[in-house]
Amino acid sequence: MKFLYEVLEDFKPSKEEIRELKEVANRIINKIKEFSDNKVLDVLFVGSSARNTNLKNDFDIDIFILFDKSTPLEYLEKKGLEFGIKAIESLGGEYEISYASHPYVKGKVGKYSVDIIPCYQIDFGEKIISAVDRTPLHHKFLVKRLNNKLCDEVRLLKAFLKSLNIYGSDVKTKGFSGYLCELLILKYKSFLNLLENAKNWRLKEKIILEDIYNLYENPKFKEFDDPLIVYDPVDLNRNVASALSRENFCKFVYYSWLFLKNPNKEFFYNYYKKEEEKLNKRDRGFIVKLIFPKEEVDDIVYPQLEKLKKSINSQIIKNDFTFLYSKCYTDEKYCYIEWEFLIYNLPNVKLIEGPPVFNKSRVESFLKKHDKVFIKDCKLCCYEERRYKHILDLLKDILNKKLPIAKTKNIDIGKGKLVWNQVT
Amino acid sequence: MKFLYEVLEDFKPSKEEIRELKEVANRIINKIKEFSDNKVLDVLFVGSSARNTNLKNDFDIDIFILFDKSTPLEYLEKKGLEFGIKAIESLGGEYEISYASHPYVKGKVGKYSVDIIPCYQIDFGEKIISAVDRTPLHHKFLVKRLNNKLCDEVRLLKAFLKSLNIYGSDVKTKGFSGYLCELLILKYKSFLNLLENAKNWRLKEKIILEDIYNLYENPKFKEFDDPLIVYDPVDLNRNVASALSRENFCKFVYYSWLFLKNPNKEFFYNYYKKEEEKLNKRDRGFIVKLIFPKEEVDDIVYPQLEKLKKSINSQIIKNDFTFLYSKCYTDEKYCYIEWEFLIYNLPNVKLIEGPPVFNKSRVESFLKKHDKVFIKDCKLCCYEERRYKHILDLLKDILNKKLPIAKTKNIDIGKGKLVWNQVT
Repeated sequence: MKFLYEVLEDFKPSKEEIRELKEVANRIINKIKEFSDNKVLDVLFVGSSARNTNLKNDFDIDIFILFDKSTPLEYLEKKGLEFGIKAIESLGGEYEISYASHPYVKGKVGKYSVDIIPCYQIDFGEKIISAVDRTPLHHKFLVKRLNNKLCDEVRLLKAFLKSLNIYGSDVKTKGFSGYLCELLILKYKSFLNLLENAKNWRLKEKIILEDIYNLYENPKFKEFDDPLIVYDPVDLNRNVASALSRENFCKFVYYSWLFLKNPNKEFFYNYYKKEEEKLNKRDRGFIVKLIFPKEEVDDIVYPQLEKLKKSINSQIIKNDFTFLYSKCYTDEKYCYIEWEFLIYNLPNVKLIEGPPVFNKSRVESFLKKHDKVFIKDCKLCCYEERRYKHILDLLKDILNKKLPIAKTKNIDIGKGKLVWNQVT
Repeated sequence: MKFLYEVLEDFKPSKEEIRELKEVANRIINKIKEFSDNKVLDVLFVGSSARNTNLKNDFDIDIFILFDKSTPLEYLEKKGLEFGIKAIESLGGEYEISYASHPYVKGKVGKYSVDIIPCYQIDFGEKIISAVDRTPLHHKFLVKRLNNKLCDEVRLLKAFLKSLNIYGSDVKTKGFSGYLCELLILKYKSFLNLLENAKNWRLKEKIILEDIYNLYENPKFKEFDDPLIVYDPVDLNRNVASALSRENFCKFVYYSWLFLKNPNKEFFYNYYKKEEEKLNKRDRGFIVKLIFPKEEVDDIVYPQLEKLKKSINSQIIKNDFTFLYSKCYTDEKYCYIEWEFLIYNLPNVKLIEGPPVFNKSRVESFLKKHDKVFIKDCKLCCYEERRYKHILDLLKDILNKKLPIAKTKNIDIGKGKLVWNQVT
């Protein structure tokens, strides 16, 4: 497939871009080393830009400061920030303090976004101390094995996934992480060969790199209940693909098949958006949104939003309304739950189906609870008034906390606003 | 249950009423005998009024003219009408010719409705020649066995069933015939004992009169696929309860139980109507009627109407509309199919669920048929436009014969009118 070379051209950074990025990284590393003390064993440039698997116009530089294992956490945190801040300042950059498992420096040097993260230096098979300690090991594992050809295959894969909107392991995307892409290419050697395999994947697909058998004597593989299971060569108790949702796993399987059936440049260029646009050319149901002030970052807010959506959906279904879809999203200031309703307005009567007339004890308890009974299809039935005739009444009661809804820590139901489109 | 005596008072004809009816019947019989020839072996007063099991204000008189088996059918038909007409005329009555298995005289003498029906005289166990030949045998079987006490029990049962709107074996009522009531009382000896048994009946309940074992040496019982099976002592290949619908069988089981739980005069006096009124006190959906000119009698039109309703309902369901009920009825001039819709208006989009993404051959054929596909719950789905957004559009197309609907002999779809209530 010749066109893949052309695609690669579009996504691979230029030699100049690569050279410049490496230079900036080295200058930062040198600065950190200059300021650091003897607790620091190494300063490493890691991540895709360090491994030459990044896409064009990706100006992220990840630098890890590796401390000796004996260093107290407090010292690591304090000094990690200090060395990072000094390095950024000395290069005329700006910074802020960010938090993952512990605080780190998020800097801006020219167009480059620089993360300077302190961690402990550990070896293969050793237990990690902080959650980020694995990253230098991932890096070491990969750089040894990725040649230039494989790096380009990784780039094709990333471009493909990005175009399908399933690249990224954040809670919003629930897709493939960069590290996962790299491992998949190590396993299948090429983008096309990966797709040839992926098109036949089933749920709970297990992928084990051969290297694992070289690294571990008696590797023990933990069971995972995920759609795709890729054992981390650095830690067999970890599934590298744990963030991938069922939905996105299925998308990858389907589009792998679809691409191979009809190989086409189109798949690499905003394929997802073009598909969305196609889907959007249709008549609409009744579109309703709940809008909440966003009081936390996406990583924290998304799972809460999904939980809330699920809980509201069960009330919607219980009340006989139906929707075409329900979805969550956020912007800078707000969180949204959106529905497109097909059935949103019902007459104030519903049929309750009771027990067969032959089951006397159940008939008896049905009669105790219900009025206006009659027989239909050998069952005792009754008519009842609806609690909600219109979906908006139900959603209003949810905002007024008159209906039991899952509790969410970072979204205050009471602050929600209800917005809807007039139906034409 | 003392109140049953009071109820009986309300439903049992007075001695005067009985005497007068018998007198009229005898005068007719004597007239027929006067005109008849030697082919006529007997003239019989049959039916409930002859057996003393009729309800008050029932002025039906059924008279059978029994011809010798050797009589040609043509002669029987001709002479049967002639004798009947002469008898009615000589008593100053009016008449018309009606048709069951063969023509008969339907007369009016004062307030009495008189049916004069010719048939062949056959014996127990002999094969019948015309469909009505069984009636004199039914009568003979019953009069021998029904004493005054049992006759009153039959009356209670009839009043109970009438009040529940399940008395009558016509295609409209689909309930209990008078003959069936009489057999049930013969079997269970009393109204209350019948109910005690009936409350525990299950679908396909089989009832065999002990007399059958006296009448037949090795009785063979045919299998029937009916909710209630009561073998006709006159013909074991016949189920006396074949007209009873599942719905009405269930009603009888349920109301037998309910009556015994709370014995009450109310059950005998338009119970059905009072229940209907209670049920009608509720909010309404969208009520729509199809009205057709009535071109045949109920007996012919009803099954056709039900067939039509069933066929239309399958189109309604296919198009995602839902109704609370659908029903058929007629008046003098028109036939009606009526629905109360809950969902009758939908946005012009629907979700089609296709195969799981893992099933490549099905995915391929789904893609050939559908546009705008996407993945949901591991399945390939798509949006489609609806053929019908509103139920009235669908019903209009049915009237315009644009949708495939079961063919009905006596109802012309093209002559249908569509009528609906404005929804409040």
